[in-house]
Amino acid sequence: MKKVAVIMGSDSDLPVVEKAVDTLRQFDVPCEVHVYSAHRTPEEARAFAAAARDNGIGVIIAAAGKAAHLAGAIAANTTLPVIGIPIKSSTLDGIDALLSTVQMPSGIPVATVAIDGAVNAALLSMEILAVEDEDLSRRLQDKRRADSAAVLAKNAAVEAKFNG
Amino acid sequence: MKKVAVIMGSDSDLPVVEKAVDTLRQFDVPCEVHVYSAHRTPEEARAFAAAARDNGIGVIIAAAGKAAHLAGAIAANTTLPVIGIPIKSSTLDGIDALLSTVQMPSGIPVATVAIDGAVNAALLSMEILAVEDEDLSRRLQDKRRADSAAVLAKNAAVEAKFNG
Amino acid sequence: MKKVAVIMGSDSDLPVVEKAVDTLRQFDVPCEVHVYSAHRTPEEARAFAAAARDNGIGVIIAAAGKAAHLAGAIAANTTLPVIGIPIKSSTLDGIDALLSTVQMPSGIPVATVAIDGAVNAALLSMEILAVEDEDLSRRLQDKRRADSAAVLAKNAAVEAKFNG
Amino acid sequence: MKKVAVIMGSDSDLPVVEKAVDTLRQFDVPCEVHVYSAHRTPEEARAFAAAARDNGIGVIIAAAGKAAHLAGAIAANTTLPVIGIPIKSSTLDGIDALLSTVQMPSGIPVATVAIDGAVNAALLSMEILAVEDEDLSRRLQDKRRADSAAVLAKNAAVEAKFNG
Amino acid sequence: MKKVAVIMGSDSDLPVVEKAVDTLRQFDVPCEVHVYSAHRTPEEARAFAAAARDNGIGVIIAAAGKAAHLAGAIAANTTLPVIGIPIKSSTLDGIDALLSTVQMPSGIPVATVAIDGAVNAALLSMEILAVEDEDLSRRLQDKRRADSAAVLAKNAAVEAKFNG
Amino acid sequence: MKKVAVIMGSDSDLPVVEKAVDTLRQFDVPCEVHVYSAHRTPEEARAFAAAARDNGIGVIIAAAGKAAHLAGAIAANTTLPVIGIPIKSSTLDGIDALLSTVQMPSGIPVATVAIDGAVNAALLSMEILAVEDEDLSRRLQDKRRADSAAVLAKNAAVEAKFNG
Amino acid sequence: MKKVAVIMGSDSDLPVVEKAVDTLRQFDVPCEVHVYSAHRTPEEARAFAAAARDNGIGVIIAAAGKAAHLAGAIAANTTLPVIGIPIKSSTLDGIDALLSTVQMPSGIPVATVAIDGAVNAALLSMEILAVEDEDLSRRLQDKRRADSAAVLAKNAAVEAKFNG
Amino acid sequence: MKKVAVIMGSDSDLPVVEKAVDTLRQFDVPCEVHVYSAHRTPEEARAFAAAARDNGIGVIIAAAGKAAHLAGAIAANTTLPVIGIPIKSSTLDGIDALLSTVQMPSGIPVATVAIDGAVNAALLSMEILAVEDEDLSRRLQDKRRADSAAVLAKNAAVEAKFNG
Repeated sequence: MKKVAVIMGSDSDLPVVEKAVDTLRQFDVPCEVHVYSAHRTPEEARAFAAAARDNGIGVIIAAAGKAAHLAGAIAANTTLPVIGIPIKSSTLDGIDALLSTVQMPSGIPVATVAIDGAVNAALLSMEILAVEDEDLSRRLQDKRRADSAAVLAKNAAVEAKFNG
Repeated sequence: MKKVAVIMGSDSDLPVVEKAVDTLRQFDVPCEVHVYSAHRTPEEARAFAAAARDNGIGVIIAAAGKAAHLAGAIAANTTLPVIGIPIKSSTLDGIDALLSTVQMPSGIPVATVAIDGAVNAALLSMEILAVEDEDLSRRLQDKRRADSAAVLAKNAAVEAKFNG
Repeated sequence: MKKVAVIMGSDSDLPVVEKAVDTLRQFDVPCEVHVYSAHRTPEEARAFAAAARDNGIGVIIAAAGKAAHLAGAIAANTTLPVIGIPIKSSTLDGIDALLSTVQMPSGIPVATVAIDGAVNAALLSMEILAVEDEDLSRRLQDKRRADSAAVLAKNAAVEAKFNG
Repeated sequence: MKKVAVIMGSDSDLPVVEKAVDTLRQFDVPCEVHVYSAHRTPEEARAFAAAARDNGIGVIIAAAGKAAHLAGAIAANTTLPVIGIPIKSSTLDGIDALLSTVQMPSGIPVATVAIDGAVNAALLSMEILAVEDEDLSRRLQDKRRADSAAVLAKNAAVEAKFNG
Repeated sequence: MKKVAVIMGSDSDLPVVEKAVDTLRQFDVPCEVHVYSAHRTPEEARAFAAAARDNGIGVIIAAAGKAAHLAGAIAANTTLPVIGIPIKSSTLDGIDALLSTVQMPSGIPVATVAIDGAVNAALLSMEILAVEDEDLSRRLQDKRRADSAAVLAKNAAVEAKFNG
Repeated sequence: MKKVAVIMGSDSDLPVVEKAVDTLRQFDVPCEVHVYSAHRTPEEARAFAAAARDNGIGVIIAAAGKAAHLAGAIAANTTLPVIGIPIKSSTLDGIDALLSTVQMPSGIPVATVAIDGAVNAALLSMEILAVEDEDLSRRLQDKRRADSAAVLAKNAAVEAKFNG
Repeated sequence: MKKVAVIMGSDSDLPVVEKAVDTLRQFDVPCEVHVYSAHRTPEEARAFAAAARDNGIGVIIAAAGKAAHLAGAIAANTTLPVIGIPIKSSTLDGIDALLSTVQMPSGIPVATVAIDGAVNAALLSMEILAVEDEDLSRRLQDKRRADSAAVLAKNAAVEAKFNG
Repeated sequence: MKKVAVIMGSDSDLPVVEKAVDTLRQFDVPCEVHVYSAHRTPEEARAFAAAARDNGIGVIIAAAGKAAHLAGAIAANTTLPVIGIPIKSSTLDGIDALLSTVQMPSGIPVATVAIDGAVNAALLSMEILAVEDEDLSRRLQDKRRADSAAVLAKNAAVEAKFNG
């Protein structure tokens, strides 16, 4: 199976990004994790992206805050699908990272998820890998069913409390 | 090859969405186009999503404006990757559609592109299909090279004009 | 008397939503409470909405955060009045939920109240039931008078402190 | 049948508001239309609201732009349900009117619809009247079905054009 | 000397509003303080405004949060200058109150100060009274000089620490 | 009677600012008009403000766009009341000018009106002059009555058309 | 004298960017103009930035719209001062480009000017070159004086018209 | 070597601004620090700016919050490059200061960095001084290399933890 690479622009993003790694591991999807900055290590970020396909990577998740260029810089150097996680930082509540990630110019798409949406980034990466992988697809559907069941269990608890 | 499905919430979105279809056709990637509304035809939207995988669809692109629920409603009923295009409407310059599309709750991701970003939605859908398709991957890389060449040709023209 | 149904997209919304339930109970208006997610339990949400009128429900209150589709998804499946409460979550201060709830396309209205405005959602639901219920109308007017009196009592305290 | 009153803060709002009146007339729901300003004719607005219930009105729709206080000022003087339409004016794209209408303090709800959402305001007013009116409820459901059919007809046209 | 009236929409605004009262008292400008809500006590707010000039009031300061209508509602009932203080509440950081206060329609001005800008509201009210009051004008100029001196003293301390 | 001075940061603001002058002239309130830029003619702006009181000016209206510092720069050099008009320019719809004008630091208030709110700036300046001028106060009240009558005339026309 | 390089991300930015070139030419400051895209020609953008100092360039101006990464990508590859011009595009009025340009992470500054602020970008680049160039400094001061005189001439015209 | 001047509008800005001073000292670049307010000490701010070049200053950094006029007021009185740091204050998360600083009118540029971006302001000031200073340029490049190495060290730690 192809791997998912999870890149963050700074290790201060780790508390958010770790949830993506955890989610991938729950599905036993192979992943690798790196810290590369679009601005402080542009050459390493570029080289990683350019070699990703040859290194067995299928999808890249890139998380960054503020003027978040990482996902776009990665996407500029590969045609693998790149998922961007805008990270909330100390000002502006993440809207700067969201716009810097999602408003990409024509030609270089970034698949953007919610601000701090690390779990969804991992799920999306697996949905991509599952397009040609029936087993993974089934396991993603199983998780959907489990999520539904969890909501319905909470519903039952709430109904018991309020609707008596 | 799996198909890309392009769904729009209203046929008034067609001038934007048509660019996604044009882009897919330039790559001879099979696609189908539909008008389903999350609110006015919820059952048809649901049924389409639920059957998409069995119908040979690999990726779904969903475009909608205002309180844009279409991509999320599709995503709620399939584990195929769903790409959301927020459409600019008569007020708020598309920020309503962007937030309604990208800020999905944990569990149900939508891969969001720029406001009115139909070309990128199509390119992203093909990057997803190309994860396991070397030929499509090569053609996407060829387009990148052609895009680069087009920028450099414009650069040459601008340099000739200004730098004389 | 018709019932008010109070739906929330996640039981994490309960601390806000509970104020709506408390307000309804202060007026002895019958209500029922459920947890249904537009994305994780779309079928249950749909089925609930479609059957609501036949089940004696007169108004539905739906609370959700982020890309808040719940009120719209409920409204798409009933012609009962649906009141949306946008819930503030960890980023963007609720503006995402507000726009996702209020900017509904033509044909499917959602009566939106303030971010986290659970008390007003309950009051609005009772104003709707009171259109044809003189007794409830009188009790709502009594509450208005009590609210006025509470403001005037505070005014008296402030005047005593400052205007001495 | 109770009447719907449609109030606008300025006759410059008429091009938007007229769509609410047209929608009500399509359903033969009795309505009356007024121009009252929360700021320029506060006494007339107040008196209208205070007498509305006695005058056979069941729901009030209030449209205003900028610092849109009209719906709130009406709501402060009646316990009838008040629906607010935020009107887009020459600056800020209607976000000023939206926040001024929807962010009401606890105690005085306003049921807010989308910026310039006059058709939905009319539909919502009729959904409220239909809570206790089976005939109107059926006609609203008929309109939903007609709206669905219109979307599906457009879908058929789009499918014919693109999916050939 | 004419009085300054300080009105707040809720006594929860008191921690902010109290700074306006303190500032007025530092200048021995007579003031009175009230709690009137545009929505919960509209008649008292109206009556206060209508009688203000006859009651010896020269300027009215009105503070409110969320859909802050208080300053506008007061201004609608008097031609005395009305100063609006938008109050920050639990969501949206005060931008709702700012737009609800400042974006008044033509005909009814509100002199808006910064979000939570109670000191400036008091100073502005005294600048207005000082137009025809040389003594108060001189004392306001004295405060400006004192404020300048305080900045320069801090400058001296910072210079000593850093430029030493 | 004291004069009103109307300052604009650029003569491109004249189409908006002219409405303030027209309004003042309708009331025969003496005014003078100037173009001073906070950034391009800071010394002239400062000198004007510092001498304004001695030159018989009672209130200063300052209009500027973008990073609108003019009203604040004037206010920093006088204790006369300064009214700021934020001017909408080619980007951001005036929100930059609004925040640059209204969010003044403690100590130097600017009485801010709506974006492009020139008529209200003029009315506010006259309300300030009228605090100690019964005749002007009466004429402002007359205008309020005329404005009310104009609304009611429009109401009559709308009622005739729709309620007939 | 060192040169100013003016880079734009797309030749569609030329109508705005051309004003920077015109301004530089008015001062006879040598400049060169290029079209390089951070995403479509990342290698050329990088190589240009890395060689800029050795090629006699003193300051780089970079203009881009949407998720505007160009200035940051240039800045990541040089320690020359980089000035960013956020370009307004078809949605969001340039706020996306502004935040993507200005909110740079610690370590890699971009000197950001106003949205579409091409003239100021050119002036800033010359202010930087003038730090060690008395002649250029004098000519910049001359322009300031000319700008002041132009404002005062407009003031004279406005005064003649209005203050007669 | 020319000096860098660091000005703040209030000593409450010191915790942010101090990082700029620390950064300059790490490079042994001479600097001086002052507290001048555009509004409370306009004459001192003006005089400082007007004399800065003659006093051996090469670049001025100006930090201010809310309606942040300081950088613009400094820039209006010198042709030295002026760097603006928008400071986050108690409301609006710094967006008011950002727009007040960056949206300068044509003719008077301010080089704006990120909200609270004091380190980058210092780095930018040194990049400006380094245009004609090879030694400083080399040291800035050394810092870039050190920053890169720090990122790569963190990358190594993260890789060891996750990819082991």
